[in-house]
Amino acid sequence: MQGNDILSSVQNRVMLYIRKYKMIQPGQKIVVGVSGGPDSSALLHVLMSLRGKLDAELIVAHVEHGMRAQQSVEDAQYVVSMAQRMGLSVYVKHCDVPSYAKEHGLSQEQAGRIIRYDFFRQICRYRGCNSIAVAHNKDDNAETILLHILRGSGLDGLVGIRPVRGDIIRPLLDVSRTDIEAYCAAAGMNPRRDYTNNDPSYMRNRIRLKLIPFLSQNFNPNIVDSLVRMSHILSDDNEFLSMCVEEAFKRSVHIDDDIAVLHIPDFKTLHKALQRRLLRYIISKLKGDADSIEYLHIEQLMAYIEQGCVGQKLTLPADIMAEHGNDKVYIYLQCAVRIMSEPFCYTISVPGDTYVKNGQAVLSSCIIDKSDITDYNSNVSVAYMDADKVHFPIYIRNRRPGDRFMPIGSNGHKKLKEYFIDEKIPRIYRDSIPLIASDHEILWVIGHRLSDTCKVNESTRRVLRLTYKTTGYNE
Amino acid sequence: MQGNDILSSVQNRVMLYIRKYKMIQPGQKIVVGVSGGPDSSALLHVLMSLRGKLDAELIVAHVEHGMRAQQSVEDAQYVVSMAQRMGLSVYVKHCDVPSYAKEHGLSQEQAGRIIRYDFFRQICRYRGCNSIAVAHNKDDNAETILLHILRGSGLDGLVGIRPVRGDIIRPLLDVSRTDIEAYCAAAGMNPRRDYTNNDPSYMRNRIRLKLIPFLSQNFNPNIVDSLVRMSHILSDDNEFLSMCVEEAFKRSVHIDDDIAVLHIPDFKTLHKALQRRLLRYIISKLKGDADSIEYLHIEQLMAYIEQGCVGQKLTLPADIMAEHGNDKVYIYLQCAVRIMSEPFCYTISVPGDTYVKNGQAVLSSCIIDKSDITDYNSNVSVAYMDADKVHFPIYIRNRRPGDRFMPIGSNGHKKLKEYFIDEKIPRIYRDSIPLIASDHEILWVIGHRLSDTCKVNESTRRVLRLTYKTTGYNE
Repeated sequence: MQGNDILSSVQNRVMLYIRKYKMIQPGQKIVVGVSGGPDSSALLHVLMSLRGKLDAELIVAHVEHGMRAQQSVEDAQYVVSMAQRMGLSVYVKHCDVPSYAKEHGLSQEQAGRIIRYDFFRQICRYRGCNSIAVAHNKDDNAETILLHILRGSGLDGLVGIRPVRGDIIRPLLDVSRTDIEAYCAAAGMNPRRDYTNNDPSYMRNRIRLKLIPFLSQNFNPNIVDSLVRMSHILSDDNEFLSMCVEEAFKRSVHIDDDIAVLHIPDFKTLHKALQRRLLRYIISKLKGDADSIEYLHIEQLMAYIEQGCVGQKLTLPADIMAEHGNDKVYIYLQCAVRIMSEPFCYTISVPGDTYVKNGQAVLSSCIIDKSDITDYNSNVSVAYMDADKVHFPIYIRNRRPGDRFMPIGSNGHKKLKEYFIDEKIPRIYRDSIPLIASDHEILWVIGHRLSDTCKVNESTRRVLRLTYKTTGYNE
Repeated sequence: MQGNDILSSVQNRVMLYIRKYKMIQPGQKIVVGVSGGPDSSALLHVLMSLRGKLDAELIVAHVEHGMRAQQSVEDAQYVVSMAQRMGLSVYVKHCDVPSYAKEHGLSQEQAGRIIRYDFFRQICRYRGCNSIAVAHNKDDNAETILLHILRGSGLDGLVGIRPVRGDIIRPLLDVSRTDIEAYCAAAGMNPRRDYTNNDPSYMRNRIRLKLIPFLSQNFNPNIVDSLVRMSHILSDDNEFLSMCVEEAFKRSVHIDDDIAVLHIPDFKTLHKALQRRLLRYIISKLKGDADSIEYLHIEQLMAYIEQGCVGQKLTLPADIMAEHGNDKVYIYLQCAVRIMSEPFCYTISVPGDTYVKNGQAVLSSCIIDKSDITDYNSNVSVAYMDADKVHFPIYIRNRRPGDRFMPIGSNGHKKLKEYFIDEKIPRIYRDSIPLIASDHEILWVIGHRLSDTCKVNESTRRVLRLTYKTTGYNE
């Protein structure tokens, strides 16, 4: 192909690809991540040429990784001068990826990625941009797919790199590396070269430098296209399955106080494929991702749900716990439950408002006439007590060993623990249920039952009204 | 591992695997396909050792391929003597795979597979067996998965070899080739070696001999396990998707006279992943398989369903056609429609029965009194005509150019073709609709309308009753 032909051919293909995946809408502002290498230099050049048609504003961002000494600095200079020649704003962040990686126990690859995307998002917010364009190409995609295959991934990995994911767009994802190199040459660009790309200690580099040539020579000259086509078919399948999982989640799970409650009878009606995916989905809802959870762990969790019994616990990596409770399984992060269960105790001001747990809840108290009781029993977060039978001071706190309670209507005290067991209150919730207590006994298990010892009856004159409200405010 | 350890270890694992996939039930008879190589020799030995526990009867079958001259004959002798030593019946088929392959335009690999499975099934029926055990192992599975990846397959290919498929069971599918070799050695067997397995002109052999060693050396020493684990996860996903497709098929497709009628509004409610799979499923229902249909063809069909218009046709490979008709798309094999549309014409005996198309249908006629008409108009396959207005002889036939028809209630003749268009009868059906005709005109479009020219009215005396019945018998 002649120089101008390759330029317009790539530009047209990218234009169609942007339209196909609705990457850029007219009037939008786009951060373009540019390393100075061939891919991102070509990306910037292509987007620049399409800027009018797209009606988009471009802003360049570059991270100088501090990894290749003088070369790294020259990369930044190259990007800045390219952007300036094009009349675009350019933002550069200088950082020390190796130190960051060491500090956070990450590989340099991972650390670089985190720092880059953080910076791009920062510029995105600062300049009011709509999305971030990065320069992955078709060969990168094939390499990613192979990487997942070699590690034995599920469908999620086999779908490869997505054209659009959240605020990230990848306009070059359907262009081959060969075409990108030809494009750079035809455009008279002399992009920077990152020689660490040839370092065979990275698996991705070995895939690019050794495996793909080996496969195209011995098996399939169009291996990159075949892999990418496979990923297209699979990504539709994967999308459909994800949709089914979201429906299953709505039907059989609710998340309550950071604890996912899975309804077992509903779960059992699901196909095994959806069960596995639903468990992974629950974990990623609780944790933000399910990266540290492997196939084996999901199998353990499946077996536990099938065979475990009430009270038995399952510990998984990444602080994840599962606990059976009748026809439910509770799945949660231990740290979240630990925070919920931390001991707390506040003396209640009567009358007045008592703020509980950094303002997450408030307990209001006042003394009223018996005739002013309006909504007797209608509300689990309001209680009326015979003020003359209550031994002040009273407290709002969570349970302690030895707590005693005489549920209203019963004929004697029992251990609070026994009350919880009788009422089938799951163990994980027991430490976080707020209680109203005197120095002698529990007066009210908030949300559940009052004590018989302070109940309002015909002889009551003064009434203590307590109202418990969660604020949803958690700092 | 010591000799006895490897024997019992493999036997135990195979036993669990057979149970897990419910491969063999007590009292069943199993055909074991034995080539004489290490895999199938080990399979026979393992099944023999488990025969008591399984309570199964074993029958050995061997195909002598006529491909490796004297060696091939010795393979057969080896299998026969092994079976006889074990006291088992053994059936051997001698054949000439290369000639068969040439004759049917197949590769020798394909031809061998067809001949083998045909023979195994023949023995299976002859001896009243329940299933056929074949000796694929874990490495074969990994190789198959890679084969599909290299060709750019969809999920269907990535699931690899199934432990059970129809009447085929694969008890060794979870045992590695290394373990099988060790098993043979420990059992004192000296199985036959097929040196064509080292021929690098077969892609599968290149995968085994070059690619897997390359991958385990450079990327993942447990590549076989990783691939197989991946296929397990994917096969659950695939099974679930297949289930969804079967449901979608029931909802939005019916097959009528070898023509699949796809209801477009229903089709459009489906996720793209299901749409693709449904189309492939329809084709395999019509054709027996969808092997010759590639990704690209399904995409063409998707676009045609989305954008095509009434009357326009789409031709796909393997004789498959699609044709729009209002809110439906007809998908069919051209050959099937061609057979349905072949010209036919039979003179009707009055009174009497006229057999149509090799007995696929029968037309009964008789003359009755007008007062004997019982079910006027209630049945589309019965017609009453004024016998005195009919010009005999009359025929049952399909349409011919120039046919004329005056539908009952209309005020003049029109071309039959126009009638079909007005009634929105899809083109593909028009050639196969049976007609009753005199030498002058069409008297009855069976299943649709009568002619006005011979309708029964107050002046009618003698009535011709015609009854059309399909027999469902198609030779």
